Amino acid sequence: MNIFIAGLGLIGGSFAKAFKRHTNHTIYGYDINPATAQFALSRGAIDIIADESDLKNCGFVVVCLYPKATVDFINRNAANFKKGSVITDACGVKGVIYDGIENSVKGYSLRFVGAHPMAGREQCGFDYSEDELYAGASLIVTPEGADDEAVNLVCEIALQLGFGECKITDKATHDIMIAYTSQLPHVLACSYINDPLAPLHFGYSAGSFKDVSRVARINAEMWSELFLDNKEALSQEIAALISNLSDFKNLIDKNDRASLKKALEKSRKIKEQL
Amino acid sequence: MNIFIAGLGLIGGSFAKAFKRHTNHTIYGYDINPATAQFALSRGAIDIIADESDLKNCGFVVVCLYPKATVDFINRNAANFKKGSVITDACGVKGVIYDGIENSVKGYSLRFVGAHPMAGREQCGFDYSEDELYAGASLIVTPEGADDEAVNLVCEIALQLGFGECKITDKATHDIMIAYTSQLPHVLACSYINDPLAPLHFGYSAGSFKDVSRVARINAEMWSELFLDNKEALSQEIAALISNLSDFKNLIDKNDRASLKKALEKSRKIKEQL
Repeated sequence: MNIFIAGLGLIGGSFAKAFKRHTNHTIYGYDINPATAQFALSRGAIDIIADESDLKNCGFVVVCLYPKATVDFINRNAANFKKGSVITDACGVKGVIYDGIENSVKGYSLRFVGAHPMAGREQCGFDYSEDELYAGASLIVTPEGADDEAVNLVCEIALQLGFGECKITDKATHDIMIAYTSQLPHVLACSYINDPLAPLHFGYSAGSFKDVSRVARINAEMWSELFLDNKEALSQEIAALISNLSDFKNLIDKNDRASLKKALEKSRKIKEQL
Repeated sequence: MNIFIAGLGLIGGSFAKAFKRHTNHTIYGYDINPATAQFALSRGAIDIIADESDLKNCGFVVVCLYPKATVDFINRNAANFKKGSVITDACGVKGVIYDGIENSVKGYSLRFVGAHPMAGREQCGFDYSEDELYAGASLIVTPEGADDEAVNLVCEIALQLGFGECKITDKATHDIMIAYTSQLPHVLACSYINDPLAPLHFGYSAGSFKDVSRVARINAEMWSELFLDNKEALSQEIAALISNLSDFKNLIDKNDRASLKKALEKSRKIKEQL
């Protein structure tokens, strides 16, 4: 099978390397930066440096671009995809993707199956891509009316590449869950680290400081796009967190040990049950 | 040298094991629960099961109890400590300890040097103690007028036990820094996990979810005491975090991509400079 990977950054590069490691498919690699594609070829991550005209030869397409670029790529190439090919993506938001490509999908009967790998790193770019980035991770898949054969192909390939599971859901649930599990921790890390005491932490910090601040090493270009593409859900999650923090603050200000202990115990129980 | 360790939980048990592993001192272990002391003895973590009357034979005392219990222990035994012995503790707050034992220290010329190991685990109790829990960690030391010889002894022993450094500071700076580096991440983890979406996270989460929620597995008894013992500083830190979260929320609500990106970049720079 010929596989087309659009975008050879951290995510696309890791897909390419995983395909080369775990399958015998032929990998067409496309990147807006020719040097990146050239480098990926020299590292054996792809078999062929592709351009968009190669889409007509590929039965499976993985678009690994930022949300707006993903929508643009699919719309621009709506007439170029091979008839019957299955197209998937890797975006961290799903609503805006489906909204943006709706006309192309309908007009050209595209077999699009949205997906979002639950794996990443603080660094970006091909240099940081890994053939085992997805090992054991969940791949969220949002069929939204795609045919079963297309959905099954995406899941089958995901498992071949080393993903641990495919989580099938709809675009709205995806976006709400991701606002909580991924976007909120990023907002939180960036809020936490923006404190005048942060630069003084040496000698005063241990694991909890490191854990909560890790993802503050953020790709601002990408995450600002992702946050605004999911702003209702994310805004609601930030508000919920602020409310919980305020509740703790009130108990502390009131010196209410019994209620504070009860609230902490409630959180511990939730965590333990996960 | 005879070393007295009061409290054989996670912290005291780890001190005992580190002493046995790295030094030839004789370890007197005291615990309110006789079975714990007996178990520690059977595991070779201590040499002698002690009671408070043994303090008169010990030149170095490490009090590894909760804050109020630490104050009570020192006050109750003010007349029992060996003349000239050096007393240290392991509490996560320092102001309330010094306030609580002030009269005993003055009245009995106690050589007290407050300390706080920057190491821990989500679990508590002797069963989870480790001889290398402190390996490479910082020990915060708050002399507050203790003589240099006493302070040097605490630091010398700390380095023997495997600590990576001694951070000398005053009690007020300690409490402010700890509110930010340690207490706030715990409040935050407990606030974060208390969300109706938390139990639904399977398949939708990766590293950032795990990192930010890790310490929600909290010892409510201990942390509720620590939080209230440092409530001014902690309340101020929670307020600062809420303010930062609100700023992000406003930018997201206003759909202000440029300012959002700028704010994220600022956080990334702070993180990268750490």
